[in-house]
Amino acid sequence: MLQNIRVVLVNTSHPGNIGGAARAMKNMGLSRLVLVQPKEFPAAEASARASGADDVLSNAQVVDSLEQALVGCNLVMGTSARERSIPWPLIGPRECGAKAVEHALGGEEIALVFGREHAGLTNEELQRCHFHVHIPSNPDFSSLNLAAAVQVLSYEVRMAWLAAEDAPAKVEKVDASELATMDEMELFYDHLEKTLVDIGFLDPEKPKHLMARLRRLYGRSSVERPEMSILRGILTETQKVARGEPHKRKG
Amino acid sequence: MLQNIRVVLVNTSHPGNIGGAARAMKNMGLSRLVLVQPKEFPAAEASARASGADDVLSNAQVVDSLEQALVGCNLVMGTSARERSIPWPLIGPRECGAKAVEHALGGEEIALVFGREHAGLTNEELQRCHFHVHIPSNPDFSSLNLAAAVQVLSYEVRMAWLAAEDAPAKVEKVDASELATMDEMELFYDHLEKTLVDIGFLDPEKPKHLMARLRRLYGRSSVERPEMSILRGILTETQKVARGEPHKRKG
Repeated sequence: MLQNIRVVLVNTSHPGNIGGAARAMKNMGLSRLVLVQPKEFPAAEASARASGADDVLSNAQVVDSLEQALVGCNLVMGTSARERSIPWPLIGPRECGAKAVEHALGGEEIALVFGREHAGLTNEELQRCHFHVHIPSNPDFSSLNLAAAVQVLSYEVRMAWLAAEDAPAKVEKVDASELATMDEMELFYDHLEKTLVDIGFLDPEKPKHLMARLRRLYGRSSVERPEMSILRGILTETQKVARGEPHKRKG
Repeated sequence: MLQNIRVVLVNTSHPGNIGGAARAMKNMGLSRLVLVQPKEFPAAEASARASGADDVLSNAQVVDSLEQALVGCNLVMGTSARERSIPWPLIGPRECGAKAVEHALGGEEIALVFGREHAGLTNEELQRCHFHVHIPSNPDFSSLNLAAAVQVLSYEVRMAWLAAEDAPAKVEKVDASELATMDEMELFYDHLEKTLVDIGFLDPEKPKHLMARLRRLYGRSSVERPEMSILRGILTETQKVARGEPHKRKG
């Protein structure tokens, strides 16, 4: 179950933090680490700080983009420190742990995403997340060390997992095979954007926050596969109409 | 109130861990650090890992014995990984945070005690504690990094403090006045249905369960008012396209 939960570190600068994150994960029973363009990896400092969690490091997957890191994921939660211009569903670490376990029990794939040491995640990266996770902290000194942030969320995952083991019946399970994956959602957003341009609702020169707002809306819904087929079907028909192609319209 | 809670590190070997602990404390709003016979302190590595929590380090008190570190304390809780021959009141991090805050609110002095990197606290030291705290961990890889353990307990202290202050984590709450009302949702479904007929996606003779499925999808989302405006705007443009009316389409 816990193997359904991957930790994704984006553009990590210090290999020591990768090692510290690996140790924190293994301590809490997590094992799947995905690194998006780490500055330096593998590295001696990572192994030193992993302090026995070498297996997590050696099995770590290194990829070129966040998109690749999220392939197959149904639920993505990303850490965020800053206030954002677009309000987004924001949860605390405890709710993050509970959601991760609830969805993992249903067989879904979950990603916990952590940004760069100093700059965090970009707005574009944050918009790929269903939820933003804020770790409560001292407002005057709010930036946690990366491995410490991984420790806190991994700890809350373990706490939720232990609670679920004790009371399995109480945790609502979601059946993963029914849900659209992240990559299917991306194809949908792409199709939606093109269609909105086709009907003239979206001006590609001045997109404003339109797609971000729509991502937020559909991201909240956990879109199911049959629903996705309907949405894609609507877009396809709308495009035909916009292009003046033959479509199903009755008189 | 949080200043009544001190963190005591016993015989720390690696100055980096002292720095990491100081940063974790300050992130969570704790400031009082007491070091019992650290191997090396002050140290450049401690300052580097503190990463801005220098004030916690410079105010740290260095003492010769655990006894001295605990002067004035009313409640002492010490971390313990191992099973002990003498049964002792054993609590988890969450209960530790709750107890610390509860007693600190009553004006008591509280100590959270952490042992050596490899050997933890001795039996004699553990017997000076009112409670032993066990951080739940992977039985096959149970030893947390010292700074990570400080992070977990400090985090639980902050969570308990926020709960007590009745200023829970700044979780963004959705203001009910922001949400589309039931009647606005009905107008939307009506508009959606007409548009789907216009583009030929919905055959009014054979509607099947299409609208029911779409109601279920959007009903799950708690659609907000600005989102509703976007959705209605998309439908209006789509209808113009379907009817061959002038619309905003570029090129």
